[in-house]
Amino acid sequence: MSKIPVLPPSGFRDFTPEETAVRQHLTEVIAGVYQAFGFQQISLSALENLSTLQGKGGGTDNEKLIFKVLKRGEDLERSLTEQKELADMGMRFDLTLPLARYYARFGAQLPRPFKVFQMGPVWRADRPQKGRFREFVQCDVDVLGSREVGAEVEVLGAILSVFEKLGIEGLELHLNDRRLLLAIGKTVGIEEDAWKSVLVTLDKLDKVGPEKVIEELTAKGIPAKAIKEIEKLLLSNHSDTPISEWSDVDAESATTLGQITSTLEGVHRHTKIVFNPVLVRGQDYYTGTIFEVRHPELSGSLAGGGRYNRLLEIFGGQETPAFGGSIGFERLAMLLKTSEAEKSRSVPHVFLPLFSEALRPEVTKIAQRLRAIGARVDIYPDAAKLKNQFKYANDRKIPFAAILGDAELASQTIKWKNMANSEEIGVSLQAPDFEIHVKRTLAL
Amino acid sequence: MSKIPVLPPSGFRDFTPEETAVRQHLTEVIAGVYQAFGFQQISLSALENLSTLQGKGGGTDNEKLIFKVLKRGEDLERSLTEQKELADMGMRFDLTLPLARYYARFGAQLPRPFKVFQMGPVWRADRPQKGRFREFVQCDVDVLGSREVGAEVEVLGAILSVFEKLGIEGLELHLNDRRLLLAIGKTVGIEEDAWKSVLVTLDKLDKVGPEKVIEELTAKGIPAKAIKEIEKLLLSNHSDTPISEWSDVDAESATTLGQITSTLEGVHRHTKIVFNPVLVRGQDYYTGTIFEVRHPELSGSLAGGGRYNRLLEIFGGQETPAFGGSIGFERLAMLLKTSEAEKSRSVPHVFLPLFSEALRPEVTKIAQRLRAIGARVDIYPDAAKLKNQFKYANDRKIPFAAILGDAELASQTIKWKNMANSEEIGVSLQAPDFEIHVKRTLAL
Repeated sequence: MSKIPVLPPSGFRDFTPEETAVRQHLTEVIAGVYQAFGFQQISLSALENLSTLQGKGGGTDNEKLIFKVLKRGEDLERSLTEQKELADMGMRFDLTLPLARYYARFGAQLPRPFKVFQMGPVWRADRPQKGRFREFVQCDVDVLGSREVGAEVEVLGAILSVFEKLGIEGLELHLNDRRLLLAIGKTVGIEEDAWKSVLVTLDKLDKVGPEKVIEELTAKGIPAKAIKEIEKLLLSNHSDTPISEWSDVDAESATTLGQITSTLEGVHRHTKIVFNPVLVRGQDYYTGTIFEVRHPELSGSLAGGGRYNRLLEIFGGQETPAFGGSIGFERLAMLLKTSEAEKSRSVPHVFLPLFSEALRPEVTKIAQRLRAIGARVDIYPDAAKLKNQFKYANDRKIPFAAILGDAELASQTIKWKNMANSEEIGVSLQAPDFEIHVKRTLAL
Repeated sequence: MSKIPVLPPSGFRDFTPEETAVRQHLTEVIAGVYQAFGFQQISLSALENLSTLQGKGGGTDNEKLIFKVLKRGEDLERSLTEQKELADMGMRFDLTLPLARYYARFGAQLPRPFKVFQMGPVWRADRPQKGRFREFVQCDVDVLGSREVGAEVEVLGAILSVFEKLGIEGLELHLNDRRLLLAIGKTVGIEEDAWKSVLVTLDKLDKVGPEKVIEELTAKGIPAKAIKEIEKLLLSNHSDTPISEWSDVDAESATTLGQITSTLEGVHRHTKIVFNPVLVRGQDYYTGTIFEVRHPELSGSLAGGGRYNRLLEIFGGQETPAFGGSIGFERLAMLLKTSEAEKSRSVPHVFLPLFSEALRPEVTKIAQRLRAIGARVDIYPDAAKLKNQFKYANDRKIPFAAILGDAELASQTIKWKNMANSEEIGVSLQAPDFEIHVKRTLAL
């Protein structure tokens, strides 16, 4: 019997009460801020038809990582004998493709622009390694149906506000534009395909440093002259060059990034907004502004996204320009792990021991009165030894106990006990005295 | 291109902003009440090893409905050539089995009793039909490690409090006990296996009525004398017999159910608590108290559960008596569908039109001030035709607009517009006048 595995599959996780409390807190902060910015939440199917997931023709990195769901019964037998596909559904690997499907389905009856967010798990058959999970939560926020800079400002404003609300300081917002990146390629004189390969190398700059980048570009056969040009333009102090100086290379990008920067600087004064011409972002579908939120003391990014003006067309329907971003939920959940305040919801305010079975109805009534004024209350289920009951309350770190024995019942009081210093005072059960006392001690 | 399906797979759903708002509201109410009762939330892996899901030996109804996840790459090829299992993981079909696995994994370091709840999707390859989904949310609440009636009282109290918080009235809590059901079999003189078959028939009483039940029992070959006995005991006015009168049949059940009833009656006065000796509940693993929450105007149940003192042993480890229940989340989400109040979070309080691109930084600043005092604010992303902007605001049913044009900027005011009656008044942007006005109009 005991051979049944007690671990989840490799790359999957169980979250303890403390971890779940942090994740719930994070979920609520993100949803609250997105809603404050006028975004509406949708929640979509976890499984998709494989033809939807592979709709772009297959072959993107994420599509290779789809968990496919085995056909069942007769369908499976037929597939096996006829050597057909064994699966026709798969688990979603991101929230963007399902959003595109949703928009194709409901777009005609949605407001335009459609300001939307999603929070939910996605699944990827990635190699489980440190910090890589096969099930993880994504938080996407998108404006669909607007090509104007307002989409960028609202999405970026919402994302920065989430970090502000969480009290995370010292952040940098890195901005770039795919159009500018492509224009630089032309300036340097490298044709498009080779330039895309250059960008893959440039993307590693922060990790490996300029020497390694030049080495790799040389190995890729990029002419020395072009590398010199790239060095001058991109590798040396690139973040000190204001965006306005890039107007010659691509006027439209420079204007857009300038507008975004000046608008956001007016409201997010504690975030450093950086124009970063070597910011690349992996996804192929970006067509304009791209961004990452970074912290100088942390590797990788805390949020990222960009403009994708063509993606929504894959399901047919009208052209729908869009801009969206995603907050690194799992990263944040780990950063917040040590925060005690967020764990509080898993800890009751008050513990009610049970002195005898006969007292259960009265103890239950008091618990209900406490809950009615907003307290989290735990009653011990058994009239067990008091020592065991209080050990349980201490293990759960419950700060107060409300003690009702026969004597207290007779005098219509409880003993209100501060578990930290064992201080006990008698409190009348009379309303509203009781409620007033409790509200004050628990700061409800 | 347009052939990519825009619908989710059959039996799966996309939730619109309005539906998602209702579901979020419901989620928060349930979690809040469970926490008020001292339960801690955990969240577990969506996928499980098949050996975990099939650990009970296979063959239960739910196990037949597992969505299996296809092996990948070399593993899959090996399985195909060697005719081995094509899958080694599956999607969870309930939250109870994962809970048992979690408890086997972490039980030693958890408080005892462990008061725990879970909310999350489960997946079953059920035949999609009216009201049956392949992906649906379950909300389980359990006390692990207590055999006392306190576990029943806390779980049932929490569940009834959820319905009270949602304003759902006229509910009935139906209680019974598996031990009593088995004892009745002995009283009637039917041996255990045949009696279990009788119970399957009795379970249909509410749906088909007593005549059909007697017909089916006769067809099953139950002796006429036993049927007479069953008729007398169970089919006629059974819910009018107080639980105390069943002490002869099974004293322990009668005592427990009596205690639960008297304790809950003291705090949940608007719920009718009914002893229902023909309540059966499908799952085989129940060992004691079983319950359902019903509404006389609705078929089926809104919540249900029971005591399962042996289930947690399937992963090995010490004996852990447990009692738990589950609220019918999908049922409730549909009942609450029409409630406007719960949808409000998807509707912004204030709309900010954009008169010109030049005004964007100022409009964005005002939006941020409004958000800081708790308003949900939507800015139109483009300086489009005002008619289009206000059409958008009306479509989204936003109740107020804050208008800032060049004239308003010069005089440091906004026009505060009630969209319902087009009433406009000028409001100074001076703090705190502005904030006071907004808070009052929006009742923040």
